[in-house]
Amino acid sequence: MRYSTLFGKTNKTAPHDAESVNARLLVQAGFVNQLMAGVYTYLPLGLRVLNKIQNIIRKEMNGLGASEIYMPALHPKDLYDTTGRWDQIDVLFKLTGSGEKEYALGSTHEEVVTPLVQQYVRSYKDLPLAVFQIQDKFRNEARAKSGLLRGREFSMKDLYSFHLTEEDFQQFYEKSKQSYLNVFQTCGLDAMIVEASGGVFSKFSHEFQVATEHGEDLVYHCKCGFAQNREIAEVKAGDTCPSCGKGTIKETKTIEVGNIFPLKTKFTGAFDFKVQGPDNALVDILMGCYGIGPSRVMGTIVEIHNDERGMLWPKAVAPFDVHLVTIGSKDDSVNEQIESSAESLIEELKQQGTEVLWDDRETRPGEKFADADLIGIPLRLVISEKTLAEGSFEWKPRQETESRLVKLEDVIEEVKVWCTTPDRLTSQE
Amino acid sequence: MRYSTLFGKTNKTAPHDAESVNARLLVQAGFVNQLMAGVYTYLPLGLRVLNKIQNIIRKEMNGLGASEIYMPALHPKDLYDTTGRWDQIDVLFKLTGSGEKEYALGSTHEEVVTPLVQQYVRSYKDLPLAVFQIQDKFRNEARAKSGLLRGREFSMKDLYSFHLTEEDFQQFYEKSKQSYLNVFQTCGLDAMIVEASGGVFSKFSHEFQVATEHGEDLVYHCKCGFAQNREIAEVKAGDTCPSCGKGTIKETKTIEVGNIFPLKTKFTGAFDFKVQGPDNALVDILMGCYGIGPSRVMGTIVEIHNDERGMLWPKAVAPFDVHLVTIGSKDDSVNEQIESSAESLIEELKQQGTEVLWDDRETRPGEKFADADLIGIPLRLVISEKTLAEGSFEWKPRQETESRLVKLEDVIEEVKVWCTTPDRLTSQE
Repeated sequence: MRYSTLFGKTNKTAPHDAESVNARLLVQAGFVNQLMAGVYTYLPLGLRVLNKIQNIIRKEMNGLGASEIYMPALHPKDLYDTTGRWDQIDVLFKLTGSGEKEYALGSTHEEVVTPLVQQYVRSYKDLPLAVFQIQDKFRNEARAKSGLLRGREFSMKDLYSFHLTEEDFQQFYEKSKQSYLNVFQTCGLDAMIVEASGGVFSKFSHEFQVATEHGEDLVYHCKCGFAQNREIAEVKAGDTCPSCGKGTIKETKTIEVGNIFPLKTKFTGAFDFKVQGPDNALVDILMGCYGIGPSRVMGTIVEIHNDERGMLWPKAVAPFDVHLVTIGSKDDSVNEQIESSAESLIEELKQQGTEVLWDDRETRPGEKFADADLIGIPLRLVISEKTLAEGSFEWKPRQETESRLVKLEDVIEEVKVWCTTPDRLTSQE
Repeated sequence: MRYSTLFGKTNKTAPHDAESVNARLLVQAGFVNQLMAGVYTYLPLGLRVLNKIQNIIRKEMNGLGASEIYMPALHPKDLYDTTGRWDQIDVLFKLTGSGEKEYALGSTHEEVVTPLVQQYVRSYKDLPLAVFQIQDKFRNEARAKSGLLRGREFSMKDLYSFHLTEEDFQQFYEKSKQSYLNVFQTCGLDAMIVEASGGVFSKFSHEFQVATEHGEDLVYHCKCGFAQNREIAEVKAGDTCPSCGKGTIKETKTIEVGNIFPLKTKFTGAFDFKVQGPDNALVDILMGCYGIGPSRVMGTIVEIHNDERGMLWPKAVAPFDVHLVTIGSKDDSVNEQIESSAESLIEELKQQGTEVLWDDRETRPGEKFADADLIGIPLRLVISEKTLAEGSFEWKPRQETESRLVKLEDVIEEVKVWCTTPDRLTSQE
């Protein structure tokens, strides 16, 4: 794709009102545009990243055997009357339609998914069952802030599972933890599994928290894996770990990127969703819910992977694989050579599935390099009169400071190897 | 995919309250589930169809050179104050958030896209420019009805184009007509281009209308291509066509599946969006908007392509390419042979990109065949003790009444040919 025709260019100056690193960089680099506090438009670069994150999550959800569905955002009030949450969920947007009918905008979908699944489960043989969706949620946050981290409208993957026995539920719940860790690892996020409040029905739920100095959350954790969030922590920094009895508890600021929750019969009970078991007796159905916010994941990646020059996207979620910069010459025949080298490189890379953003603007090199660093695509290639004279491209990974020359005839193969080499940003330390 | 594990099975009986053919068939076949009037959940089969329609549209929009973005559904009131549409759009859902801030739910996105594009257009050189999104819209319809045809929440592709000159706008507008016709043709819909009201700013807008006896709209048209909708028609049935002067005007019931609209400076003017032209003088920017509702297209396909047994999906939008039915035998060793034939068929078809829904249930054949007809996947293959004895599969296109046997060794190649053969449902008469 030619940068000259891309909608949503970089801004020379950072937005003065950006309240967080991710908002500042994503807006400045032309990935998103703020419509109002907590509500963003995804521009082409940002939408590409969002779609990649959603597809990484989708793949893991399919791997769990969950079926993808798509539920509405507009919910009728009566479902919330059944669960008693109409006045309980403080962030619920409420509206009135024609005929004075009252609706909520979905901030979560238990009220919709439980009676939905109930309609299709005809016998205990239909369980266990899991469905998920990737859909936009609405939350009437009093203070939306932190860019993509806390929005009033945001992308959410929500998974719901239904089980006949506690054992079966537990098995799925543990499997989901691994799927979640896979998602975060692929996205370049090193997530801790943290114990959190389980509400009235369960001892614990679990959050996936990523350590960062700009985090809003606070986690108390030990090297052994023990971790509790601020709300339920029974320890403080410096305590001896109650789990392993050896390590010392550390306090770390974090961003929550996912959570999983044993709902037990909280919602299935409210909707009187039971099935006849093998022995004809009615069996309570146990439920779990599992959330990841793709837009929040996007914001978190930026919070974690950036430097003074801009963003650094892990390969799996980068908007493009390669950022190609051509530097014009004063000599028209050289320019033609540069153009045609660029075009044939892009065509050959396309054949092997490598996506290229080509900065084809007539702009000075310094500006192109600064924009490439700001945008943060993992690999930058440069073609100029100088590199062509050496029969080469200049090769520079975004994470590295040094560039080198790669021969024209080798570049396709080297890019192929590069794309399949594990990403330093996603490997656990 | 095994039908036994698919979420959202067929119902034996049609929903008694379904108000239209598409609602009845889509609900009964387990493609969608009605949450309330005009609001549906997409179950896995329905979501697959919706995604295919969206991707057909996406491809055509990319072909027009439009950039895909994704705008929010939550709109601040002040943008509507600028255009004067806060009280003008009668289907606008309005809500109040924290701090008494007022929002609309997007029923269309001119109020968001115009100031958005304005921020990124820095010179006349940045034009023409077109952006589109595939996103969910909300309309507070007094009477939502007709299944997916008139929803309160529905999928919409909205494209917006911006131009410096009337000539450039017209060129794009005409190109968009062809893209729209391509979309509908691929989806098996034979759409007429119909003149409709152009509002205050333009003489005409254009609607894409599909003839069907269950249509809500009424079109007056001639064989020569002249067509006007009921609201603006200056002719009646039986009149001589005012365009060609020869044909006779016919009156036909239709469903509107898309529309394109010359907005001129209606919105760019309201937002004072102008650019400096080459001669430094400020130039007005001309705008067009172009809509297709993927969910409405899905409903229309069902209205058009059905018979007394169920739906008939055009190949390009079918949830799966092949519906495989296995019929169990009393002999366990034969059953094993049937299962393994099915599994290897599915694996081989997968290699060539053919998607199979396998009805692997232990259900009687008549029920499986009835479900296959209801679901409407274009090609049905059957493996049973009888077909295996002949070294064959039974082959039956959904559109045909007769089946035939195809040798096991030929079936992969025959399916390949079948998948790439033009679809009778999508060819114009």
